[in-house]
Amino acid sequence: MRQPPSLLITGGSGFTGRCACEHFQKLGWDVTAVVRNRSVVIQGVKIVSCDLTIREAVESIIHDTKPDYILHLAGVNSVYDSWHSPLESIEGNVLSTLYLLETVRQLNNQPRIIIVGSALQHNQGVKPLHPYSVSKTMQVQLAEHWAHLFDMDIVMAKPSNLIGPGPSKGICSLIAEEIARQEQVRGIPSLRINDLSAKRDFLDVRDVVRAYDLIFKHGKKGQLYEIGSGQMRSLSEVVDHYQRLTKSPIQIEEVGPNTSEELPFVNNESIYELGWKQVKSFRSSLADILQYYRQLRKEG
Amino acid sequence: MRQPPSLLITGGSGFTGRCACEHFQKLGWDVTAVVRNRSVVIQGVKIVSCDLTIREAVESIIHDTKPDYILHLAGVNSVYDSWHSPLESIEGNVLSTLYLLETVRQLNNQPRIIIVGSALQHNQGVKPLHPYSVSKTMQVQLAEHWAHLFDMDIVMAKPSNLIGPGPSKGICSLIAEEIARQEQVRGIPSLRINDLSAKRDFLDVRDVVRAYDLIFKHGKKGQLYEIGSGQMRSLSEVVDHYQRLTKSPIQIEEVGPNTSEELPFVNNESIYELGWKQVKSFRSSLADILQYYRQLRKEG
Repeated sequence: MRQPPSLLITGGSGFTGRCACEHFQKLGWDVTAVVRNRSVVIQGVKIVSCDLTIREAVESIIHDTKPDYILHLAGVNSVYDSWHSPLESIEGNVLSTLYLLETVRQLNNQPRIIIVGSALQHNQGVKPLHPYSVSKTMQVQLAEHWAHLFDMDIVMAKPSNLIGPGPSKGICSLIAEEIARQEQVRGIPSLRINDLSAKRDFLDVRDVVRAYDLIFKHGKKGQLYEIGSGQMRSLSEVVDHYQRLTKSPIQIEEVGPNTSEELPFVNNESIYELGWKQVKSFRSSLADILQYYRQLRKEG
Repeated sequence: MRQPPSLLITGGSGFTGRCACEHFQKLGWDVTAVVRNRSVVIQGVKIVSCDLTIREAVESIIHDTKPDYILHLAGVNSVYDSWHSPLESIEGNVLSTLYLLETVRQLNNQPRIIIVGSALQHNQGVKPLHPYSVSKTMQVQLAEHWAHLFDMDIVMAKPSNLIGPGPSKGICSLIAEEIARQEQVRGIPSLRINDLSAKRDFLDVRDVVRAYDLIFKHGKKGQLYEIGSGQMRSLSEVVDHYQRLTKSPIQIEEVGPNTSEELPFVNNESIYELGWKQVKSFRSSLADILQYYRQLRKEG
């Protein structure tokens, strides 16, 4: 009998990580999740604990698991924290990736690696808005250069704003959490939002994990895949959608100046060529998020 | 009496480092050189030994010296080695710079810092030719971003191919060393060169140090200064010049394919605006290099 493919997912306990663990485990893959907190449990998935900014730790995990595929989701993801600890952002996103790529480069049988960037990367020649943006841009550049210089099987992904049920700190989750809280006490969901006109390309995390699956199987070495819905939606549109999903009257206070980043349109062309399609509609994603928080409250 | 300015030069025992130590020490500055090898002696200059890829070591040196100016010349400078130890190139050039900038960022009185890039950096959107190029490009990008994001007094310099008397491993020094060796034994200087038509912008190291001096005094925060002669010279031109400086008949064997990097023209505009001018002619630089090796031979 053929062995199932083995997959190492770094950042396995994060928002995308958990969804990816579930997806590939259901397909019968042999999944190992790298996490920081050893007490994490994910059904059907091996857990290893590791600080990826320690070179020897990265080496020992790669040598122990010898995976066929690596999905590198781990990183330091807070824009806010990056202002206070930019060193941690660079180390957590750039150095960890360098250690990973350098360890894999020494292997006889090199796995295919997906390095996951961010919609908040800055484009060439554009000044970055925060240290987080610097760290993600450098991470993806490093991966592109290593793929090219050392002919390694590295593929880059740049997902748009990911939403969906699960432990996310994104705006769609924050609103749903507040609605579920107020529904329980018959209160009024009330939120302070910086800029209601700010637009984002929202995509369900389950759709992006299906894209990673396709990239593992059919992606082109050295290619950067942008993955998004292709549709920009404002935060007031998000609130309107939620209002249709709850009887509680949502109150929004718009605060502060409109200083949101204008994000470039996602170019889905390359991922469409792999046969990828968005499956989850925006509305159904929001419904699932709200359901997730209602359920959490019930289990409370 | 006013205190003289204090200057920390990292990589103080290198080719440019030694020249910079001498220049600023002669001006009466209080110069401290950071070196890897503690046994280095430079007249009139304090020596401290430090591995700049260790964060705590960088912090302790900055806190101990509290310099008014930092000239960051230290780094891992071999293109050849970068293929075998790319990790060391990135750590030695990017991580050390990050530690330096992050330590300085915490100070109340921040020094002006010059971060020195390389003519071998790759331009945006162009694929790098070696990991060394990646490391120098990222180093300078990091410095530019930190200057912008944290409003730090960082200036970037991108010198062309530096030549001059002293411990250089550049092609002009290699040829002069061989000539001096053969002159002593009345032999025939014989060299194997990859591509005689390869062109470089050669500039005397003493001229570039005068540029750093001007940048410290009048340079614009956040600016990148390219510094070169503005003239591209082929390696066969270098050989011709040397032939006029020695009676030994130089023999050149051209080997291998012409795979040299085509380097972009140096844009001297910004450094000219500071009043900089090239003082050393190409011919006098080569004469000084040859004299340096003849003297070394004599001293045996």
